[in-house]
Parts: sequence; structure tokens; C-alpha cells
Amino acid sequence: MRILLVVAHPRTQSLTHAAADAFAEAATAAGHTIEWADLMAEGFDPVLREADEPDWSNATKAYSPAVEAEMARIRRNEATVMVFPVWWWSMPALLKGWIDRVWNNGFAYGDASYPHARALMIGVAGTDEKAYQKRGYDQAMQTALETGILGYCRIADGRLELLYGSMDGEAADALIIARARELGAAF
Amino acid sequence: MRILLVVAHPRTQSLTHAAADAFAEAATAAGHTIEWADLMAEGFDPVLREADEPDWSNATKAYSPAVEAEMARIRRNEATVMVFPVWWWSMPALLKGWIDRVWNNGFAYGDASYPHARALMIGVAGTDEKAYQKRGYDQAMQTALETGILGYCRIADGRLELLYGSMDGEAADALIIARARELGAAF
Repeated sequence: MRILLVVAHPRTQSLTHAAADAFAEAATAAGHTIEWADLMAEGFDPVLREADEPDWSNATKAYSPAVEAEMARIRRNEATVMVFPVWWWSMPALLKGWIDRVWNNGFAYGDASYPHARALMIGVAGTDEKAYQKRGYDQAMQTALETGILGYCRIADGRLELLYGSMDGEAADALIIARARELGAAF
Repeated sequence: MRILLVVAHPRTQSLTHAAADAFAEAATAAGHTIEWADLMAEGFDPVLREADEPDWSNATKAYSPAVEAEMARIRRNEATVMVFPVWWWSMPALLKGWIDRVWNNGFAYGDASYPHARALMIGVAGTDEKAYQKRGYDQAMQTALETGILGYCRIADGRLELLYGSMDGEAADALIIARARELGAAF
């Protein structure tokens, strides 16, 4: 499959990028092709302005050139994988705004469904699974991201995977990278 | 109380702004003072870059000038009220990034608590309460925003209020504005 691999982290030398690299390497070895979308390096602007507001009376509205270019980049691929650090039980604003702007009415929902039947969100989480479960953050993220975004856009095979423990030291980092590699191999 | 009123919407003529206006008018009548923070008009950049990454070994890290200015604006007030449209069961990236960048280690959590003991998030929601309850979006938002942000930053009186039905026509709009006014009067 042609995979659009979207990454959102301020540093290339981050664990998030290392996880994305591991995913990409394994997915490539499994026969997929990768198109990178490094939103930070590309200077993507996550602020939705008037030009990109949905027009509920017009399902074929033309969006801003930047958004139309993102839509074209999605359309020329067959699957979307997003790798990001979990900040405040959600995505960084950089990625949230990519969805706010690009996953728009008439393209991802409304009269349309998102162009891909497979999408994977990989969230690199600071603490461990128990800490997430204690407050229900894991369930909240499944509801908001997996049900509320991937499911809402009728992506048949849409999943959120949380890779826990990025603040727990090098051994935990290695496990996160290994898990990202598994996800790439199994994609 | 001195209230910092943070608004995040692409259009000044939006229902979100009308709700913020109604809140401000009623809060002012009740004796509070309002400092506006219209993130769109101010051109706030929600992208967290390296300069604003938390340094876990340094609780007194100096952040970027833009972020330090936001911190000063918060410190000279006594309460924070955020008014925003619900996009993807969360805030617009513009506001998410304000929290990503400004509600930082050593300022809002970690060795510190958020400077205010009262904070209110007012989310203007497109559909009705039943639609939110059906998928658990209301609970997911309470967990992520109220528990996971306001509670996490040890804001004693921190609440999320969802004002439902912004896509249901003028009568629903009027109810949303009336409810925002009540929240201002009771603040």
C-alpha cells in the first residue's frame, strides 16, 4: 500500500521520529511505500481560518490552496499513519490543526468518507498504561480519536495505538520503537 | 475578579464570539473585569517548537518571549475563561496550542500549579446532548479537558461546560447565548 506517514514533533531527534522511522522501515520491508509528511519541517499552519470553514450548504466547496494540496497528497496514497507525542491526552496542535483544516466537510465526512479505508494513529505516551487507565485517559482518547475522528470519517480499519512510557528511560524507549516496528511490519 | 477571556474562532461574527460577548457582559455587570485574549485576531501561533518544550530537569526554564508574554497575561488576572467551538470533540488547534505552549512545566504543573483557582472552558457544540452521549463524547471531553487539563493543573474550581446545538438554528443559538450569559452572571 501507499502510506502517507504524518509526523508531528518539534524535534527530528525525538522518540516520536524514531518510532516513525521504525514503522516506516518495517512497512517498507513488508512491501509498502511511504510518503513522509513531516508537518513541522514543512511549516504546516494548523490554524483554520475562514477560507477553510466548512460550508454546510456546499459539499464541493474549494478550500485554501494549502488545504487542497494536503487533500491531493492524501488522495494519491492509500492509507494514513499519524505518529505524534500525546500532549494533554490528545495530539499536538500542529496535528490537530491538520485534521481541523484538511479532514473537512465533503472530503472526509458529510457527503464523502475519508479517502482511505485504513488509518492508524500512533500516540507516544509519557506515562504508563496504568496511569492512563486510572483517570480514564485511554478510554477518552479511544472515544475522541478512534470513534470520533477515524470512525466518524467512515474509515473501516481505523485504530489508535498508544505506546506508553516515553518518560520512563531508555529501556522503555526501546520498547516503544520495537512496538512501532511491529506495527509497520503488520500493517 | 480579573478574568482573562480567551476566545478561539476564525470569525468575529461567530456564535462563539457572541457567546463570549454575552459571558463578558454579564460577568462585568456582576462586578468582574475582563481582559480579552482573541487568539485569532492576535495571530497567536499554536505550534510548540523546541524553545517551548518542557525541560524536566529545569522547573524554572525560560520559555520563548511569546509564551512568557502569555504567562504574564495570565498572572495579572485571577481566573481564566476559554470560549471555543468544539471541533473533533476537542478545541480548535489554535486554542490547543495555546495550552500546549503556555500551560507548561513549572508554570501550570510540575513544581507549580496553574496561577488561577478558577477556570471555565465553554465549548460551543454543534449537535445536541443526546448525540454526544450516544458515543460518549461528553464523557471523553470531561475526562480529557476537565480532569486531564484543569484538574491536572490543580485548578480547584475548574469546569467544562458544553453548550449544545449550534447547528440547530436560531432558537438554539439564542439558548446558547442565554446560557453563556448565565455563566457570566454566576461566575
